[in-house]
This record gives sequence, C-alpha cells and structure tokens, in this order.
Amino acid sequence: MPIIVQKYGGSSVADIEKIKNVARRVAKSRDAGNQMVVVVSAMGDTTDDLIALAKKITAHPSGREYDLLLSTGELVSCTLLAMALDSIGYRAVSLSGAQAGIKTDTEYNRAHILGIDPKRVVNELNAGNIVVVAGFQGITQDQDVTTLGRGGSDTTAIALAISLKAKECHIYTDVDGVFTADPRLVAEAHSLSEINYEEMLEMANCGARVMHPRAVELGQMYNMPILVACTFNEKPGTLIHGGKDMEVKNKVTGIAHDMDVAKIMIVGVPDRPGIASAIFEPLATAGISVDTIVQNASIENITDLTFTVAAGDLDKAMKVVMPIAESIKARDCISNSRLGKISIIGAGMQNTPGYAARMFTTLSEKNINIHLITTSEIRITCIVDDDRVSEAVRALHRAFELEKP
Amino acid sequence: MPIIVQKYGGSSVADIEKIKNVARRVAKSRDAGNQMVVVVSAMGDTTDDLIALAKKITAHPSGREYDLLLSTGELVSCTLLAMALDSIGYRAVSLSGAQAGIKTDTEYNRAHILGIDPKRVVNELNAGNIVVVAGFQGITQDQDVTTLGRGGSDTTAIALAISLKAKECHIYTDVDGVFTADPRLVAEAHSLSEINYEEMLEMANCGARVMHPRAVELGQMYNMPILVACTFNEKPGTLIHGGKDMEVKNKVTGIAHDMDVAKIMIVGVPDRPGIASAIFEPLATAGISVDTIVQNASIENITDLTFTVAAGDLDKAMKVVMPIAESIKARDCISNSRLGKISIIGAGMQNTPGYAARMFTTLSEKNINIHLITTSEIRITCIVDDDRVSEAVRALHRAFELEKP
Repeated sequence: MPIIVQKYGGSSVADIEKIKNVARRVAKSRDAGNQMVVVVSAMGDTTDDLIALAKKITAHPSGREYDLLLSTGELVSCTLLAMALDSIGYRAVSLSGAQAGIKTDTEYNRAHILGIDPKRVVNELNAGNIVVVAGFQGITQDQDVTTLGRGGSDTTAIALAISLKAKECHIYTDVDGVFTADPRLVAEAHSLSEINYEEMLEMANCGARVMHPRAVELGQMYNMPILVACTFNEKPGTLIHGGKDMEVKNKVTGIAHDMDVAKIMIVGVPDRPGIASAIFEPLATAGISVDTIVQNASIENITDLTFTVAAGDLDKAMKVVMPIAESIKARDCISNSRLGKISIIGAGMQNTPGYAARMFTTLSEKNINIHLITTSEIRITCIVDDDRVSEAVRALHRAFELEKP
Repeated sequence: MPIIVQKYGGSSVADIEKIKNVARRVAKSRDAGNQMVVVVSAMGDTTDDLIALAKKITAHPSGREYDLLLSTGELVSCTLLAMALDSIGYRAVSLSGAQAGIKTDTEYNRAHILGIDPKRVVNELNAGNIVVVAGFQGITQDQDVTTLGRGGSDTTAIALAISLKAKECHIYTDVDGVFTADPRLVAEAHSLSEINYEEMLEMANCGARVMHPRAVELGQMYNMPILVACTFNEKPGTLIHGGKDMEVKNKVTGIAHDMDVAKIMIVGVPDRPGIASAIFEPLATAGISVDTIVQNASIENITDLTFTVAAGDLDKAMKVVMPIAESIKARDCISNSRLGKISIIGAGMQNTPGYAARMFTTLSEKNINIHLITTSEIRITCIVDDDRVSEAVRALHRAFELEKP
C-alpha cells in the first residue's frame, strides 16, 4: 500500500469538531487504500498561550525549557486526533517527535532535523495503525526535546514523507491552495492547480504565507510531491512538484507581496573593497536578515548602497549601521519603513524578454514609483510605497492575465 | 551535599504567582546546602481540562493515547518551574518522566513503577542543577508514556527519593500537615508533628486525603522519612517516619472519617465453605473494592454477611450480588448507602485495653447507633449513619483529648 503523509495546521485542529473533521478526512484517504501518517500542529492558539505563560515568568526563558513546554501543544492535538480516529473505527496511535524518531541538533527553538529513524512509524503502519505524529518537535542525541521553529510542522511532514518513501505529502491549511495573488487584494485571484518547487520557493520567500520556504526546499531536494489544500472543503488544491510534466507556459505563475519592508540607504560610500563586508557582517552578527541589496554604479569612486530589512528590524539595524556609516565616512544614512515588495514569479519567464518591461509599464501607468528593482531567473521584484501595494498587485494581476485559468 | 526531594501538588502550582512562590521555597532549601529534586503535579485543574477534552471525543479513549495526553499537564508545570528558578538565579533543568528514568509497566492510567534509572538526574545534580521532574508519569520499555493513577505524583517523589538515597522526601500541599481530625469538622483539631508509617497508612485508608496509601506504603517499605507540609506558610508540618525515635505514647494519634460508605447485608446465608468466595470473587472481577467485611456468628448454620463498598459503587455491586444471593438461597439482600465511617488510630493502642470501650461509650452517650465495628492492631472503626459522622468525630476528638498537643 502506498504511504501518504498528511499535515494539518493549527487552524485545522482548533477545536474538537475540527479534530473530528480531520479524522473523517484521514479515514477517507485510508479507505482509498493508503497507509496514513498524519502530522499535526497544536490546536489553534495553544502555542501562543504557552508562550504567554512562559513570558509571565521570565523574558528570557532557557531554550531547553521553552522547547519542552511548547512541545506539549502538539502532544495534546495528536493524542486527541488518535482518539477521534479510534472512535470512528480506525486504529490509530499517536507518537511524540521523540517516539517518531525525529533526530535534531541542539539549536533550541529553531532546531534542524538531522535524520529520521522511522522504525517505530514503520512498525505501527505494518501493524495496521494510522500513525499520528506531533509536528514541530524532535529530540537531541541526549534525549532533550527541541522545537523546529518557523515552518516546523510542514518540515516534520515532508521529512517523514521522504524517510518513509511516501507517495505524496499533503499540507492541509485554511486556504484552498497557492493563489495567483493574495485573494484579499485581488478578487479574481485563483488557486493554481500546480506550481514547481522553484516558483513556490520564490513565492514563499516573497511573502506568500501558505508554506515556509524551508519546507519547500526540503521537498525540492528529495523531489517529494507536495499537495497544498484546504481542510474545510474538497477543492483539489495546488500540487508542488518538480515540474517535469508541466507544459512550458510562457506565463507569469503568480504575484507575491510583502508589506513588512524597510529600506536603508547609505549615501556617498567610498567604493573600495571591504566596505560591503564591513556593513553586512555586523548585521548578520546582530541576527538581522538582509533581503534585497542594491549598489549603484560608482561615480568618481563614490557610490550609494541600499538594502532592505523587515520593518520590525529597522531600529535595530539602524543602530548597527549608523556608527559604521560614520566610520567609513559615508555622507549620510537614511531609512524608510513605509515600503512594500511586489514580485512576479514564473518559470516561463526564464530567457523570455518583455516581462520586466510589462511590469514597469504597468506600475508607471498607475503612477506608482519604484524604489528598488531586483530579479532572479524566475522572478522580478519591485519595492514601492506600502500604500500603493494593493493597487499594484491588482494592476499586475490584470496585466499578466492571471484571472484566466 | 544531602539530596532532598520535594513534591508540590496541583494547588501549589495553580498559577504563575504560585509557581514563583514554589521557586522561592525550593531556592531556600538549596541555599540551606541541599541538592534539590522537585516533583510537580499539573497546574490546578489542567488534568481535569484535558480529561474533558478527551471525553468530548470519545467515552472510551485508548489508555495509551489518554496517558500521553494527560502527561502534558505535568510537562507544562515542570518547565515553568524550571524557568522560574532560572529567573531568580538558580540553574534548573526540567525532566519528563521518561528523561528522569521512571520505568513502569504497561497498565495505562494506573501504571506501577518498576524501577528508576537515576543516571540523568544524578548527572544534572552533579552539574549543579536543580532538577524539576514531571510527576505522575513514566515510560514503558517500548518508550510509551504512562500515567501512575491516583497518588501518582507523591509516588514519583518517594520513589525518586529512595533511588537517589535522599535524606528526606517533602510532600507540599494546601494543608498544614496530618491533622488529629478533619479541621472542617473539629475546631480544635491540630496538625501532628510526627506520625509513624502504620498510623499514616491507617489514616489514609480510612479517609484522610492528605496522602495516598500507596505512596505511604512505598515510603514505609524503604524507610524514607516523609514530611507533609503546607506550600503557603512556614509551619513545620508532619513528619511520617519509622517511629523508632518516638516516645511510646499511650494515646490515640488521630481520627479519620469517610462519608462515602454503603453497606450491603446478605441475610440468612447458609454457613458452608465457599460462600464468601462465591460473593467476593465476582465483586473483585467487576472492579469493586470491598472495604469492611463482617460475618456474624452462625446460628443453626445460618449467618448474616455484611460488607461495605464506596457509595458510588453500590448500584454496580448490588447488580453483582443480587443474583448470587438468590442462587445461594439467602433470605434477603438489603443495602444502605447513607453511612459514614469513623476510625480512631494510634500505635499506642496496641495491647492496651480500654480504647474500644471508650469509643463505644462516647458514641452511645451521643445516642449514635453503630452499624458495624472492625479493628486492626492500631485502629478501631465504626460505621454509623452519615448524618451523625461530624458529631461523632467531634465527640471522639474530645473524649481522647486530641486537642492537647
């Protein structure tokens, strides 16, 4: 029998009725002749509630204690789902991350999976059980519980699917799949039937929240097909895969956007080796992720260096950058936190001219000023004022005819 | 450094302020020069809340799933206590039952500790940490989580104390210690400074709820001194110990009572071998604990057999007993669920006449009818109408001069 790994997020198991709904969905896949492994997140706001408890005690909880605390949320939901399956006549067993053999490093709060020992899971499947695994958690060599950080449960599911040689990994969530653009901004946006790993990675990195890039990357590395679909309806969802069978579509696949963007511009920087590293090394040390970096062509050995960070990191970043700008004798250092990022993404854009031009023309027709431009092989990104993002996304969705299936 | 094991019950860790209070108490014992191991129950009503969740899904959850679910309550409180200790400058580490090496059998919901592998606990103590252990839970040979049932966290604490060769085990609760009688009934009742294991066992078996008999028995078996004291004040509490150093006091130690008593009387039973087993075997099979059993002297080979069960078990017990009474041709089978049990307990009663007489006289002076009498070496128990129990306890407390320290 083929193995299917399904993952249900926190909103899919937020209350008892929803857990029963998940049990019925899992049972249906089982009836269709699959061996089932189900990964669950904690119920609804459980993780936030546990974090709030810890914060009442200390602003800086030990990573080890914090992870053992947070790991209880998934234990509760996975045992309840196993009970719900059992109560409708399907034998099921719940496993903690430790019991499921999820081995991690000791980076508490953001541990990485080092490997999976699937012995117990395989034994339970062979015994005819549906296996319900607590997502988002693993165990170190010293038997200490870790959590996997952002995108953790998706990563658990995909890693399990890979180690079990599953046929597919299904990620169930509260949206219908991967959309051509955010449907809250664009009424005509629709769910894609398929997308390849590269496009999905660009979408995820550029603000589409449906899956964490880390989980997509893992799927891509092992070529594990990932279906993203909705827990609450029967719509087919979006299949993320290697793209071998995909028709080459001379087309933009989707538009991602992110409102959480701030820009720092260091003006009048002497253009000599070592300057970039003098700026970006200390930012990395301070734990600040730098997104887009643009350096203008140098005029008389003086250049401007611009980069973006998450808006929430701006104050911290400025504290790092200001003294450096001074020490390298830059003329000025200015910031803007009221920015947004819009990206058009599509494998079909590779080696095909005209996409960038059409994007810039569309924005210009709407009188939307472009602060920065960056591109990858399958993506073009523009930074614009945040109050123009919605309008820009709608205009681009029309310009690239994404309303057509 | 001597090792002290402390256990804090659910009401002692019911909220964040109480957890901080526990942290300060533990820190104080640490400052006094002890290595500290702390066992905690789940916060307040957590366990009841988890049970309610499971019951919403199914009336008969699998024991394995149920135990993994319930075990999360103690994980939450033990991680929070470790954080609270850390936040006031005491290095602490929390351990699940599995990590603390609590090995059990596979009797889910009421597992028994088979042994403790204290390696990890010892290593953490040697590294200078205070060790906080999740009570009430253990792990089977197959790495499945179990819970220990009633009195579970007390049992965890005492078993750990024994395996670590601790100096003492402290059980902290919301009462000041073991009382001469229930202070809600007797205004003059006071906390005892000490009591021996046998007396404590009789007290616990006869309705004193402060400790579960199972945990006392374990302490007795290994002669581990147990201090029962209050989490919320500095009163000295009651030391339960082997009694070697105790003065032989020609005195009643305490009075226990239990309102939850029902009586079944099988009238006119032919007095021949095998009758008792014909009645009590099926009750045992049905999981009904029989407490007191009294058989009257036989007259012309016809006798009456009376026994008591918990009032909540009466209906179930009658369903078992009625057909048996008929088949052995007993004349009648009658029950009474409105009864209570009063016991006077004291090691000093051994081989000393007069205690029983004084008890019966005291009850008779109050016109309280005695339904049944049973005795052990250090205990005399009377079953009376439940609406007379309070009055009886007060009268006996005075008659045996328990108000005097």
